[in-house]
Amino acid sequence: MKRIAILGSTGSIGQSALAVIDAHPDRLQVVGLAAGENADLLAAQIARYQPRVVALASGEASDRLRQTGVTAEIAGTGRDGLVAVASHPDVDIVLCASSGTDGLEAVLAAIAQRKTIALANKEVLVMAGGLVTDAARQHGVSILPVDSEHNAVHQCLHGRQFSDISRLILTASGGPFLGRSTSELAGVTAADALKHPTWRMGRKITIDSATLMNKGLEVIEAHWLFGVAAERIDVLVHPQSVVHSLVELTDGSMIAQLGVTDMRLPIQYAFSYPDRWTAPLPALDLTRIGRLDFAAPDGAAFPCLGLAYRALEAKRTLPVVLNAANEVAVGLFLDGRLGFGSIPRVIEQTLDASVPADVSTLASVRAVDQWARDYALDIARGVESKV
Amino acid sequence: MKRIAILGSTGSIGQSALAVIDAHPDRLQVVGLAAGENADLLAAQIARYQPRVVALASGEASDRLRQTGVTAEIAGTGRDGLVAVASHPDVDIVLCASSGTDGLEAVLAAIAQRKTIALANKEVLVMAGGLVTDAARQHGVSILPVDSEHNAVHQCLHGRQFSDISRLILTASGGPFLGRSTSELAGVTAADALKHPTWRMGRKITIDSATLMNKGLEVIEAHWLFGVAAERIDVLVHPQSVVHSLVELTDGSMIAQLGVTDMRLPIQYAFSYPDRWTAPLPALDLTRIGRLDFAAPDGAAFPCLGLAYRALEAKRTLPVVLNAANEVAVGLFLDGRLGFGSIPRVIEQTLDASVPADVSTLASVRAVDQWARDYALDIARGVESKV
Repeated sequence: MKRIAILGSTGSIGQSALAVIDAHPDRLQVVGLAAGENADLLAAQIARYQPRVVALASGEASDRLRQTGVTAEIAGTGRDGLVAVASHPDVDIVLCASSGTDGLEAVLAAIAQRKTIALANKEVLVMAGGLVTDAARQHGVSILPVDSEHNAVHQCLHGRQFSDISRLILTASGGPFLGRSTSELAGVTAADALKHPTWRMGRKITIDSATLMNKGLEVIEAHWLFGVAAERIDVLVHPQSVVHSLVELTDGSMIAQLGVTDMRLPIQYAFSYPDRWTAPLPALDLTRIGRLDFAAPDGAAFPCLGLAYRALEAKRTLPVVLNAANEVAVGLFLDGRLGFGSIPRVIEQTLDASVPADVSTLASVRAVDQWARDYALDIARGVESKV
Repeated sequence: MKRIAILGSTGSIGQSALAVIDAHPDRLQVVGLAAGENADLLAAQIARYQPRVVALASGEASDRLRQTGVTAEIAGTGRDGLVAVASHPDVDIVLCASSGTDGLEAVLAAIAQRKTIALANKEVLVMAGGLVTDAARQHGVSILPVDSEHNAVHQCLHGRQFSDISRLILTASGGPFLGRSTSELAGVTAADALKHPTWRMGRKITIDSATLMNKGLEVIEAHWLFGVAAERIDVLVHPQSVVHSLVELTDGSMIAQLGVTDMRLPIQYAFSYPDRWTAPLPALDLTRIGRLDFAAPDGAAFPCLGLAYRALEAKRTLPVVLNAANEVAVGLFLDGRLGFGSIPRVIEQTLDASVPADVSTLASVRAVDQWARDYALDIARGVESKV
C-alpha cells in the first residue's frame, strides 16, 4: 500500500489523482490533503478519504472547513500547511499539484524526509530546479514527473543510459491560437484563450498554453528533471496531443510515448512506478485518430517560448524572474487588464531589468520572485498604456 | 571489437551491414561472408574486408569466385557453407540475412556456439520459431531483430517487464497497392508491385509487402521473438513508415520507435546492443515530414494477412506450410505465371490440405516445407487455369 499526500487536492490534477486512487483502493491510500480556498470540496474529500492530515491556504478557509462539521487534523495554513501535510510521517508519495510557487517549501521538506515526489507543478523546478534536484540527489529521492510531456520523456528514457540521449522533444498542442500571426493575436481575450483544444486544465496553465509559455516552462522543467542542456531540448507543435513527447537517441532513432489525453495516466504512472498497473481508461486507437500532425513552433507569434529559452540559457535567477513576471502578466490578462500581446512584453522588460544572481537559498528565490512580481506589475501599467 | 559474420552479404541487407561496419572500423570487423550466386560482388567484398571464411550457394559460384583470383577460405556451399561461416570460432555476431529458409541450420549452429544472432531473415522464425527460441534460451543467446518493425519493438520494450506488455502493434506501409479493392488488384503485375513507396528491398519481400504477407510473417516472427500471443499482436497501416512499430503497455500508454527508413539503423542497433552508437545518417525531422497517417489494414483486399494469423493461431507446422506456399506463389507471380489475386488462393488451399504436425526436428520442418512447396506448385496450375 502506497500512502499518498496530495497538495492541491481540489484542483484539476488533485481530483484526477483521487480518481486514480479510487481505481486502486488495494494499492493506494490517501493520507494527506491540502487545498487552497475551496473548503467545501475539501470537506467532501475528507468525508470520503479520511486523511490523517489536511491543510488549507488561509485561516478563513480553515474556519469554513470547521463549520462544515467535518473532523480532520488541520496541520496549518498557507505554505506551512503544505509543508506539514507533505512531511507527515505516514506519507510515502507527495503529489505536488498546488498552484504556482506555493509548493516549493513543501517539496523540499518532503525530499528531506525521503518521500517520493510526484511533481505536477512545474513552477517548483522553474523557481528552484538546482536546489530541488540537488536535494533529491543528496537524499536519494525520485522526482517522478506528472506533467504529461515530462512523464512521456520519463517513460521513453526508462532503462536507457544518459549517454544515449541526443535530444528531448517536447510536444505542444499549439494552444487555441495555433496558426495565428502576431496581428491576428492582438485582440484575443481570456475567454478565447480558455477554449483549449485537447487538454482540460486550470485557468493559469490554459493561458500559458495559449502563449506557449507553458511549453517554455516545460523546457526549463525538462532541463532540471533530465539534466539535458537547453540547446538539446526542442519543442514540436502537435495539435492532436497524442504523442506526448519524444526522445532522440544518439543513433538518430526516436522513442515516443503516446496516450489518450487524460491526466489520470501520468498520475497513475507516478504512483505505480516502477510498476505499471491497468487503467480504467479507453485505449488509444490510432486507426480512429487517423492522422497526426507536426510543425515547428512560430517563435515570432509566440515570443514567450523564446523568452523561456533565454532565461534557461542564462540560468541563475532568470527563470525565477521569467516565472514571476509571467504569473503577474497572466493574472492581469485573466482580469482583462492586459492585452494578450503585452504578456511577453511585460516578461521581457522584467528580464531585461533583473540583475542575475545565484540561486543559493529558498529565501533568495523568494526575494527575486517578489522583486520580479512588483516590477512586472509596475511596468504592466506602462506597457498597457502604450498598447 | 565485435567480429561479424554476414549470411547474405551481397544482398540488400548484407550491403547495408557492410556500410555499418565501414562507419565503425574501430568497433566492428568482418570475419565471415556468405553469398548466394553473386561471386563477383563477393570477390570485391573479400578484397575489401579480408574475411577469414566465405561461402557461396553452389560449386559453380565457388568456381567463379576462384576464377576472380581472390584468395579466401571457401568453407563449403549451400546450407553447409552457411553453417560453416556462422559457426566459425572467431565469430561473435551472426547477421542472418540470407534469403528464404536457407539460414535455418546456420542459425541453430551459431546458437549452439553461443554466438549472438542478428536476425534479418523472418523465415527462420516462421519455419522453426519454437526450435530456434528454445535453443537460444537454452544456450543463453540473444536474438536481436533487424527487421525494422521488430527492432522497433525491441527498442520500445528495452528495460520493461514482460508483464507490462499489453499489445504489440506492427506498422505496415500498406505496400504499393494501399487503398485498392480486390477487383482493382486483379490485374496488377510484378512490375507494379516492385514499386515500393518507402523501403528499398529485395524482390521477394517487396511482393510480400504488396500482399501484406510480409506483415503476416512479421506477426509470426513477433510472436516468437517476444512471446506474445497472436490475438495481442496488431497490424497498423502507416504509409509514411516513420513509426516503425509500437508497444501498448498495461495502462494503455504506448511506446513507439520512429526513425528514417534506412536499414543501417536497425542493423547498427543489433551490432551495438546493448550500447548505442552515433550513426552517419540524417536525423528524422518530424516538422519536415509534417503528417503521419494510420489506418486499419483491409483484410478483404489483402487476405494473406488473415492467412498468417490463421497459421499462427493453429501453430505447429501451419506457419511452415504458409511460408512455403507463399514462396512458391510469389515465385510464380514474379515469373508472370500466377495472378496477384491467386497468391492467397494458392496459400489457402495448401493450408487447407496440410495435416498439422508438431515441429520437433529440423528434418520434420524441411519435410513439411517440401510437401507444401510441391503441393502449392501443383495447385497453382489449377488455381491459375480457373482465373
